[in-house]
Amino acid sequence: MANNGIGDRVVDNGFESLHEHADGEHELEQNDKKLKEEEVSVERVFQHKVVPSWRNQLTLRAFAVSLALSILFSFIVMKLNLTTGIIPSLNVSAGLLGFFFLKTWTKFLEKSGMLRQPFTRQENTVIQTCVVASSGIAFSGGFGSYLFGMSKRVADQTSESSDFKNPKLGWMIAFLFVVSFLGLFSVVPLRKIMIIDFKLTYPSGTATAHLINSFHTPQGAKLAKKQVKVLGKFFSFSFLWGFFQWFYTATDQCGFQAFPSLGLKAYHNKFYFDFSATYIGVGMICPYIINISVLLGGILSWGLMWPLIENKEGDWYPKDLGDGSLHGIQGYRVFISIGMILGDGLYNFFKVIIHTFFGLYTHVRDKRRENVLPVDDQDSSLSLKLSYDDQRRIELFLKDQIPTWFAIGGYVAIAAISVSTLPHIFPQLKWYYILVIYLTAPTLAFCNAYGCGLTDWSLASTYGNIAIFTIGAWAGSSHGGVLAGLAACGVMMNIVSTASDLSQDFKTGYLTLASPRSMFVSQIIGTTMGCVVSPCVFWIFYNAFPDLGTVTSEYPAPYALVFRNIAILGVEGFKTLPKNCLLLCYVLFGSAILINLIKDLLGKRGRFIPVPMAMAIPFYIGPYFAIDMCVGSLILFVWEKINKAKADAFGPAVASGLICGDGIWTLPASILALAGIKPPICMKFLSRATNERVDAFLGS
Amino acid sequence: MANNGIGDRVVDNGFESLHEHADGEHELEQNDKKLKEEEVSVERVFQHKVVPSWRNQLTLRAFAVSLALSILFSFIVMKLNLTTGIIPSLNVSAGLLGFFFLKTWTKFLEKSGMLRQPFTRQENTVIQTCVVASSGIAFSGGFGSYLFGMSKRVADQTSESSDFKNPKLGWMIAFLFVVSFLGLFSVVPLRKIMIIDFKLTYPSGTATAHLINSFHTPQGAKLAKKQVKVLGKFFSFSFLWGFFQWFYTATDQCGFQAFPSLGLKAYHNKFYFDFSATYIGVGMICPYIINISVLLGGILSWGLMWPLIENKEGDWYPKDLGDGSLHGIQGYRVFISIGMILGDGLYNFFKVIIHTFFGLYTHVRDKRRENVLPVDDQDSSLSLKLSYDDQRRIELFLKDQIPTWFAIGGYVAIAAISVSTLPHIFPQLKWYYILVIYLTAPTLAFCNAYGCGLTDWSLASTYGNIAIFTIGAWAGSSHGGVLAGLAACGVMMNIVSTASDLSQDFKTGYLTLASPRSMFVSQIIGTTMGCVVSPCVFWIFYNAFPDLGTVTSEYPAPYALVFRNIAILGVEGFKTLPKNCLLLCYVLFGSAILINLIKDLLGKRGRFIPVPMAMAIPFYIGPYFAIDMCVGSLILFVWEKINKAKADAFGPAVASGLICGDGIWTLPASILALAGIKPPICMKFLSRATNERVDAFLGS
Repeated sequence: MANNGIGDRVVDNGFESLHEHADGEHELEQNDKKLKEEEVSVERVFQHKVVPSWRNQLTLRAFAVSLALSILFSFIVMKLNLTTGIIPSLNVSAGLLGFFFLKTWTKFLEKSGMLRQPFTRQENTVIQTCVVASSGIAFSGGFGSYLFGMSKRVADQTSESSDFKNPKLGWMIAFLFVVSFLGLFSVVPLRKIMIIDFKLTYPSGTATAHLINSFHTPQGAKLAKKQVKVLGKFFSFSFLWGFFQWFYTATDQCGFQAFPSLGLKAYHNKFYFDFSATYIGVGMICPYIINISVLLGGILSWGLMWPLIENKEGDWYPKDLGDGSLHGIQGYRVFISIGMILGDGLYNFFKVIIHTFFGLYTHVRDKRRENVLPVDDQDSSLSLKLSYDDQRRIELFLKDQIPTWFAIGGYVAIAAISVSTLPHIFPQLKWYYILVIYLTAPTLAFCNAYGCGLTDWSLASTYGNIAIFTIGAWAGSSHGGVLAGLAACGVMMNIVSTASDLSQDFKTGYLTLASPRSMFVSQIIGTTMGCVVSPCVFWIFYNAFPDLGTVTSEYPAPYALVFRNIAILGVEGFKTLPKNCLLLCYVLFGSAILINLIKDLLGKRGRFIPVPMAMAIPFYIGPYFAIDMCVGSLILFVWEKINKAKADAFGPAVASGLICGDGIWTLPASILALAGIKPPICMKFLSRATNERVDAFLGS
Repeated sequence: MANNGIGDRVVDNGFESLHEHADGEHELEQNDKKLKEEEVSVERVFQHKVVPSWRNQLTLRAFAVSLALSILFSFIVMKLNLTTGIIPSLNVSAGLLGFFFLKTWTKFLEKSGMLRQPFTRQENTVIQTCVVASSGIAFSGGFGSYLFGMSKRVADQTSESSDFKNPKLGWMIAFLFVVSFLGLFSVVPLRKIMIIDFKLTYPSGTATAHLINSFHTPQGAKLAKKQVKVLGKFFSFSFLWGFFQWFYTATDQCGFQAFPSLGLKAYHNKFYFDFSATYIGVGMICPYIINISVLLGGILSWGLMWPLIENKEGDWYPKDLGDGSLHGIQGYRVFISIGMILGDGLYNFFKVIIHTFFGLYTHVRDKRRENVLPVDDQDSSLSLKLSYDDQRRIELFLKDQIPTWFAIGGYVAIAAISVSTLPHIFPQLKWYYILVIYLTAPTLAFCNAYGCGLTDWSLASTYGNIAIFTIGAWAGSSHGGVLAGLAACGVMMNIVSTASDLSQDFKTGYLTLASPRSMFVSQIIGTTMGCVVSPCVFWIFYNAFPDLGTVTSEYPAPYALVFRNIAILGVEGFKTLPKNCLLLCYVLFGSAILINLIKDLLGKRGRFIPVPMAMAIPFYIGPYFAIDMCVGSLILFVWEKINKAKADAFGPAVASGLICGDGIWTLPASILALAGIKPPICMKFLSRATNERVDAFLGS
């Protein structure tokens, strides 16, 4: 699922994961079987290549490349966060670019005879891990959700505006440092159980490992080179397109982003194609059903519900409140969207939890049964398990241990620092709230890591919402419950999110023979980078675009408002909602659960049923990006019809190029904005009648 | 050369001709040699195919397809006429589309067992000839030059506005009928001399014949099919793009055609890319040096001369005359442009005339020498001449004769009708003026047909200008010399233009074994179609776009004003010109001659010297289309770098698709305009400051 909202995240999910979720979750057995078939002879290909020691896997050059890429991806993730909140997997682009940079670098050194250490797939995995960890913070840091939801700017758009904390570079970095490392330590002791004993799939981690392995075979490197070339081409195109668009965007209502490509009437209901290279790319990466769900949600809300509700203006809600008031039409948009998101989140929470416990139960039962089996049966199962690949992998995975006392000690130490520090940052968040979170967190972190291994679906946002509700209600409105809830959400999300990330990385490392120790160190370094880079990137956006976070802005940051309103709901209940809004929320909440149920009951045919979470995204910001995404889908669809092999090989590269080019354009764009250089021209769209008036005005 | 202005025309010149002219004219001997080498075995390939009788070459289906295509091409030529006056060769598209339509049709009939007569290359030549003849009228009818120059709308923009005749469907059709057939009859008796005795090259006719021959070989048909597919794709794209653009063009100052793609300052000096698919296509067809010349001319005029002259406002010419007055800056634009056009025209006129007489002299001398040569030498030269291909071709070319008495009788009869009818249409054009024209015309027609055979350069417009000057001066200003001159120009242009067209067609027919009789009949039918279709198409434009012919219009028809001003110059002299304008005219007139002289003296290296005629085109209307054309050039250039073979095979198809799609969009566009349906949206470009004012105005 491609959505930063409530219930899941995709920043560090592999590309394939998106497709897999849309097709329904895989069964454990099926996955294991498939996994084995695919990998029968991978390690034979690599058997003559020396695996460097874990210290040698961690090279300075790898971290230099990682830093450059993590800045790039922080910009991209931040842009996505602040526009629609839909974040596709950038693993393929990170993999391609990492490979490209380091390969170019080592080739150059090789030619000049200065190469001391060849570029290995283990080093490649280290880069991948580091970049994913770093850019992951850009998502889990909540700059588009809980953290920015604390600000006065967002608070002023809600019914509870007294309780706020504006973003400042200092406290944001401090906050991230004290909460981002706990997840890492909580999952370290469990890695052997999850990867070797339970053999969890981690589809994203597996996909990434396949990608990295393929890069380091001769044919794979050749294909990768071509893919990088395609990526580079579309990167440049997308960057230049962003640059070109800039000139015509004197205000937010000007330029290609405000192009009424389906007519002015459709434009007023936010149906238009906005020429965004990013969302065309996102549409190419997301599975068809996600794109169609988003479009359906847009049609349902902006095409049907909102116009109907607007007809009741003066009856259901007071007249002349304007478009932005939560007591008017905006209230319906936000809360109905929250209803649907919570419905979907709840359903998937229970589904994944049930899967998790059922999976655990099966494992434990199988383990027990194995112990009572006759010896020859045990042997056969052992020999099956210990294929050449598995032997190699297990051997190397168990070689470099991370002591359990180190993990537990680290967790306790950081938790202690955190408990004593956080109340200084957020006075509303008492130390005992934090202690409670840290006592329950390892269990939840394990649940999330295990569930993610089974289904590739990280429930970080859902756990975050649970924290909002519980801590918010505990604190109560009089004691700043809204802010306490949001802060608690941040603490919880960071732990469970990094836990599932690191597990994915361990799987990748396992399949590429990278040492768990180097993975861990790389995650630590990546997280450190992220804790500094992400707030800085957000700070640039925050200062460059003064209307950031308002609905008419280029960067509406939709989930900031949504998260804050969830916190308000948790603290204050439903009293602020306009007439019939609660009823509609219940209806959509129920529909979300029902649609999910139907989807799952239909099995394979359920892939044609839309995804409620995706449907809810355009409720608030409008369906324009859905049209971009469907254009992306359409391009990919036609391409697949014409040449499936080529589309499969180069589609992700094209999409990555489009996303990265447009994403990195935001860097010069925000620098220009910071320097006070404004675009010179406004490309304006006027109806013929208005145009005549304007011409008369300008002529006189 | 791709220019409808003064000195030449290209409507019915083959695609290759454009390139050949740019590379300097070919020497007679060289061409003959090349011709022979290329065609050594063409007729062997076709030897088992029966050539149908001339009556059977003229099928109803061929004329049905011709009518459809001639309407299509009339729209395209008319659009080009009325926008910039640059008309590239559409022969390749006509050939491709004609082949495609009739092939589809006959294949369908073949499958249903109803095919009585197979599709032959002779039939294809008949279509080609008919379409070229018909759409040729759209050019030589002067709808973008002399004929529209008679109207009050154009007259009002000049210093002589009392003498006008507004377009009416009736007199336009009548006029075309009485003048368009004379050229045909004047050239018929000379066909054997030009094609067989003089073996003139007619590069365009030869290229068209090659194209048609290739279509009817198995590999050729396969390539043609692919080309048609590419053409169709770009046709649809270009049509849909035109359609899309329409919605945003509420006024002439709105939409993509007014896109300040190089900034607002450049836009005010008419430097911008206007997203016109037509001119990108035209740029792909025209040789690089033409595109570069147009751009250079644009930079010289709008980038340098006009801004400098505008600084002299109040000194060289009165202040506050506005942009459209011929006594102000507009006068400099028009007359300096005329100066350069006349300089280039004059140079080329004398060059071609000298070539013609020198060629004739060489032929006569060689003929004489042959007669005194010993017998065996004569034999060898005969056997050289009578290769298998030549034998077949001469045999069939001489089989169906058109009696000379019929040609002369036809000429005299039509001339008589014309002399008695024309003064009724234009009272200013006395019957004795017409008689004089008709007495000299056959000689000039022969000159033009012969020169065109040598150099592929039709001087129709130059002969037309000679008529303007002589008849205009003869009539004098008190007796409506302006209108008399323009009408005389029309009479002359039609004769000499059709004469060279028919000669080209005879050459094509000769090389495809089509009968001269069927060629002649096809020309007659095509001309008849053109005499009805072209005025009707013009009539649609004229009524659909009420500002047609004014400088701010989408259809400025630049040459209408230029032709009228030439007539005024002829009648009244230079007295109306603003200060220093005449001096600048002389300078540019001289420069045009000088540049041409340098170009010719440099020989092969002269291909890097710009073409003055092309440079003069943007003087009046601005360089925006030059930027489109250079974009087309750039696309072709990059394509050729990447894959030369593919670019050569499909470049013309892409260009034709772009031109035809956008051209045919003008049909629904004008129907919409006629029905009073206006585009709903204005895409407006405002500077940031203006935008703020407009926002304030609209907000209040």
